[in-house]
Amino acid sequence: MNPPIPIVVRESGMQLGMIGLGRMGGNIVRRLMRGGHRCVVYDTNPEVRQALGAEGATPVESPEAMIEALDGDGPRIVWIMLPAGRITDEMVTRLAAAMRAGDIIIDGGNSYYKDDIRRARQLAGQRLRYVDVGTSGGVWGLERGYCMMIGGDTEAVEHLDPIFATLAPGLGSIPRTPAREGHDPRAELGYIHAGPTGAGHFVKMIHNGIEYGMMQAFAEGFDILRTKASDKLPEEERFDLRLADIAEVWRRGSVVSSWLLDLTAAALARDEPLEGFSGHVDDSGEGRWTIEAAIEQAVPANVLAASLFARFRSRQDHTYGDKILSAMRFGFGGHLEPKTQSPAKAD
Amino acid sequence: MNPPIPIVVRESGMQLGMIGLGRMGGNIVRRLMRGGHRCVVYDTNPEVRQALGAEGATPVESPEAMIEALDGDGPRIVWIMLPAGRITDEMVTRLAAAMRAGDIIIDGGNSYYKDDIRRARQLAGQRLRYVDVGTSGGVWGLERGYCMMIGGDTEAVEHLDPIFATLAPGLGSIPRTPAREGHDPRAELGYIHAGPTGAGHFVKMIHNGIEYGMMQAFAEGFDILRTKASDKLPEEERFDLRLADIAEVWRRGSVVSSWLLDLTAAALARDEPLEGFSGHVDDSGEGRWTIEAAIEQAVPANVLAASLFARFRSRQDHTYGDKILSAMRFGFGGHLEPKTQSPAKAD
Amino acid sequence: MNPPIPIVVRESGMQLGMIGLGRMGGNIVRRLMRGGHRCVVYDTNPEVRQALGAEGATPVESPEAMIEALDGDGPRIVWIMLPAGRITDEMVTRLAAAMRAGDIIIDGGNSYYKDDIRRARQLAGQRLRYVDVGTSGGVWGLERGYCMMIGGDTEAVEHLDPIFATLAPGLGSIPRTPAREGHDPRAELGYIHAGPTGAGHFVKMIHNGIEYGMMQAFAEGFDILRTKASDKLPEEERFDLRLADIAEVWRRGSVVSSWLLDLTAAALARDEPLEGFSGHVDDSGEGRWTIEAAIEQAVPANVLAASLFARFRSRQDHTYGDKILSAMRFGFGGHLEPKTQSPAKAD
Amino acid sequence: MNPPIPIVVRESGMQLGMIGLGRMGGNIVRRLMRGGHRCVVYDTNPEVRQALGAEGATPVESPEAMIEALDGDGPRIVWIMLPAGRITDEMVTRLAAAMRAGDIIIDGGNSYYKDDIRRARQLAGQRLRYVDVGTSGGVWGLERGYCMMIGGDTEAVEHLDPIFATLAPGLGSIPRTPAREGHDPRAELGYIHAGPTGAGHFVKMIHNGIEYGMMQAFAEGFDILRTKASDKLPEEERFDLRLADIAEVWRRGSVVSSWLLDLTAAALARDEPLEGFSGHVDDSGEGRWTIEAAIEQAVPANVLAASLFARFRSRQDHTYGDKILSAMRFGFGGHLEPKTQSPAKAD
Repeated sequence: MNPPIPIVVRESGMQLGMIGLGRMGGNIVRRLMRGGHRCVVYDTNPEVRQALGAEGATPVESPEAMIEALDGDGPRIVWIMLPAGRITDEMVTRLAAAMRAGDIIIDGGNSYYKDDIRRARQLAGQRLRYVDVGTSGGVWGLERGYCMMIGGDTEAVEHLDPIFATLAPGLGSIPRTPAREGHDPRAELGYIHAGPTGAGHFVKMIHNGIEYGMMQAFAEGFDILRTKASDKLPEEERFDLRLADIAEVWRRGSVVSSWLLDLTAAALARDEPLEGFSGHVDDSGEGRWTIEAAIEQAVPANVLAASLFARFRSRQDHTYGDKILSAMRFGFGGHLEPKTQSPAKAD
Repeated sequence: MNPPIPIVVRESGMQLGMIGLGRMGGNIVRRLMRGGHRCVVYDTNPEVRQALGAEGATPVESPEAMIEALDGDGPRIVWIMLPAGRITDEMVTRLAAAMRAGDIIIDGGNSYYKDDIRRARQLAGQRLRYVDVGTSGGVWGLERGYCMMIGGDTEAVEHLDPIFATLAPGLGSIPRTPAREGHDPRAELGYIHAGPTGAGHFVKMIHNGIEYGMMQAFAEGFDILRTKASDKLPEEERFDLRLADIAEVWRRGSVVSSWLLDLTAAALARDEPLEGFSGHVDDSGEGRWTIEAAIEQAVPANVLAASLFARFRSRQDHTYGDKILSAMRFGFGGHLEPKTQSPAKAD
Repeated sequence: MNPPIPIVVRESGMQLGMIGLGRMGGNIVRRLMRGGHRCVVYDTNPEVRQALGAEGATPVESPEAMIEALDGDGPRIVWIMLPAGRITDEMVTRLAAAMRAGDIIIDGGNSYYKDDIRRARQLAGQRLRYVDVGTSGGVWGLERGYCMMIGGDTEAVEHLDPIFATLAPGLGSIPRTPAREGHDPRAELGYIHAGPTGAGHFVKMIHNGIEYGMMQAFAEGFDILRTKASDKLPEEERFDLRLADIAEVWRRGSVVSSWLLDLTAAALARDEPLEGFSGHVDDSGEGRWTIEAAIEQAVPANVLAASLFARFRSRQDHTYGDKILSAMRFGFGGHLEPKTQSPAKAD
Repeated sequence: MNPPIPIVVRESGMQLGMIGLGRMGGNIVRRLMRGGHRCVVYDTNPEVRQALGAEGATPVESPEAMIEALDGDGPRIVWIMLPAGRITDEMVTRLAAAMRAGDIIIDGGNSYYKDDIRRARQLAGQRLRYVDVGTSGGVWGLERGYCMMIGGDTEAVEHLDPIFATLAPGLGSIPRTPAREGHDPRAELGYIHAGPTGAGHFVKMIHNGIEYGMMQAFAEGFDILRTKASDKLPEEERFDLRLADIAEVWRRGSVVSSWLLDLTAAALARDEPLEGFSGHVDDSGEGRWTIEAAIEQAVPANVLAASLFARFRSRQDHTYGDKILSAMRFGFGGHLEPKTQSPAKAD
């Protein structure tokens, strides 16, 4: 146990360095500046950092220059917003080399929570503090605010509170949940301190796992609706349903109303056959890690796993497994040398 | 083909008979009366019909009395809101015996859409019209309005439009979906004419199938969150997460925001361990019929099926299938006579 | 209750009519003749019936002629072996018109067991008896014998015993199961009287459901083995496995040894990439009905359902559901008008 | 690259040390001794090692003593057969400290294949050789032989060939697979050299994954058979099936015939209600790692995952997820304060 690090509480705006100025990082900086915070910014692409400079941020030419540019006697804060684990690891190491005890590194990307735990352990020897922030909101976040799930040391998280309060959506027009007295008031504002290091990304990871499941539920449902027009069905059981109207009507008073349904309704209003999409669906680490967590904790998770597998399947024409099935079916027919491709019908 | 039935278009409120005055039926009557419509009501329980009478409806003592009480020269309209298929069948037959050509029977319950098709075919000989209405909204519907998916003959559905317009939520404060020009304007008001007979209940059925999938996605996700506190995990990977705050924060700006999440947040704010619930989860016909439709249409529906199966499983302590597994595992051990219950470990 | 029908017990071979001389029907006739039974045969294709005539059967030109050709004072027996439910229904009706009380119709095809129950009920008025026989064995059955699951009236099934005993594999060289004293000795010979009408096809249906699950387990396993050579994996974790040898080695002493594995090993020995197969996998009614039975009985059946869905999926390039997923992912990115097909990466 | 290690090829029996004399380790030693090999044995339990000494093995009091006791100028061979990864790791380290270049460590337990790769890399610096052997056969192996999947350096595996040939089942009475010319002849004898380090345990892991899937297919099927007697079904669709006879008949000529079915038939012949089993089903690492491999390789594996999840579920009375479902259903009913436990019925 190290002695506690003194925290400088600021009345007004804070200062923060942002590394990685993609869509997420750039908009976070913009929202912070609107909230009265000062931002020092770095990206490997000089044009991107100059552009943000023109909007009021202070661009620098290297992570080390950022550390220097962050003034003052309080802890310096750097938010890393990079796409992948390995690059984030390298940046953490590079920043740590230039930082002093008490400084704070925030990883706001989509890191695996076990990487957070490892990094925090490494930085602890140097008395640097590491905060993991799972961030939801996408490009809508600039206007609506970011929903944030935060992990790390309580003092560090409290020190960063003005930052989170600015980024979060706030109460907005969403109806209040009854009986929230005695619960953490930050949750209603759109951010939580979920727990120790890694807890932020863990909660965000499960969020994405759930998201996969909800998406797949809609996908399967709309698939059944659409194929109800098939001419293989008896004529009076055949319906040529207008999916855009169905998605729209469900937005009003139905149990499945949700932001994902809003997005679906918008997509279907534009292009009901969805011809602009190939049907090849990517997946990100969070969906995979969610299943690994379920397995580690012995939680049955058929829906979350099936959602992930549907994406894997969407990216293949035919699996080798399908061919194994055909080969067995051929075998039932008793022909050891297939002459045609028609599978045997027996059994 | 029968000649078209003349439709009397009413400028002001319409008149409708309601059979079945449970929570749904009673509130539908109340919302209709608020909208200026006149309701004749029947329920096997006399107290219930008297109570609605005191609120302005006209109670009658039998379905036949209802037909007589519905005045006028236009088509008479009876809405049946009964819990199960067989009772609805009997009521349709009884009403039909008292009705005349052009009259309209509405089934607003949770009927199987193939039953709708059969009933409409039977009534067609008598030139009665049958309209199926899948209704979502539960007890919230009185205030918020009912989301309705309607199947049946176009003329009949258009004749009933003032009824549906009153019951539906309307535009409300929900943001409009862009690019809806050219789509059916009724969807934005909260009701659609989905297609011919059965299409209304079919769309409602798929709605419930999707609902099951979304619910199960949340269930699995929260299960993983909760078991993350297990002392079987390494200490630094163990998080004692506050699920009520997590549900709350996801309501603000996250991708999984939805009415189901709102309900979950409210439940967790009251009682995070959910000790008031046994974990025994019922299922209704719609979830089952959705899988049958998927099978009939050859649509892969792993998520929707797994959601249904999770409910089946929730109602059993141990399945016989589990014991079959144990018996096989015992067999691996090579003992044909079990002496203890400890399964063999080999393989 | 009708009075019992007197049964003529035959010491020697029996006489049986076979309708439908495809691979299954033809070989059943051949195996019966080898066992000393006399067969009258009919097929819509005259060449096929003449061919069996040349092997010793008595060909006839119509079902009615078959009834006449079946001699004697005991019950006449006709075995129907037709591919689909509707044709079988028509044949049952046609035969019934020519039969007399006590005669027996056997349906040896893959009928839905609820159709059996309906047919038996219809025939009961005429005091005709209906026996359903689920038959496994495919083209291997002629030599190895047929595994039969039989449903129907006990007297009728016992009357037919010499037929079933001839068709069944018998004890063969398969090791005896211990502790079978007190159980039905017919099971060891390869046939059972499963229960009343429909029970035979019901048990065969579940057999096929299990078969789908076992096949899919192998399919997924071999898929993982094969993709272990992928160059996306770290080099030292990449294995170029010889699947034909793996299937072969598992046949010897492993827990997964099975006839399906034998067939897989044979297929892989011939053609490890399985290039002769398209990967488009059909399914038959039994797999679908198995899931419907699971749903009707509220049994969780994730594996059996997933096996069926994998076959549905194998027959599509991309599902509409996949495109729904892509459309939602696009929506996260906040662009209401897609300009490119690249899905947004946020969340 | 180190220079190749000279291999001493032995004409007759070999010498091997076995560490861990549980059911598997002990029987492997017995089978080796029957095949003319000499075994030095160690277990932490002195009684167990003395017992094997009485059967002809040479007991020693420590792993170090074992290394000394293994004579000669050729590579010394030690087979580790311990239950878990950590203990195996410690033993590998301890043995390595006493060994010399060229010696061979075999891990015959159920190690994770990535641990094999790590260990082999560590030992390579010392020019020790590490061979991983996935072993199937359980307590039946002593008589029937062990099915072995081997990973590691080709020279080491070939040097060990007399050991594997003795342990394997050999051709036996199992029918030969056609068209195996050109394939590895060892597979027919019951062992394969699957690939480099880790490949043996990887193949064994997938074997177990498939095994889980096959077992669950049977479990679900028998569950549907058994619940077909439920008095909730219409009387004529209710069958009181004799499961022991069904399992037995399927052993003869059906597509699902398999060793697992043999075990099931034996279990059901003894005790059809399976009252001796609690229905609590354990799982081992292989089932979990199989799903992780599927995820790593982006292979859809719904059946294998569902099989694992069924076991997780079997060990809980009610999941928290089930309660989440109930809480949402309660919410539909509109009561924010539950008064009873009956879930709302709406939707």
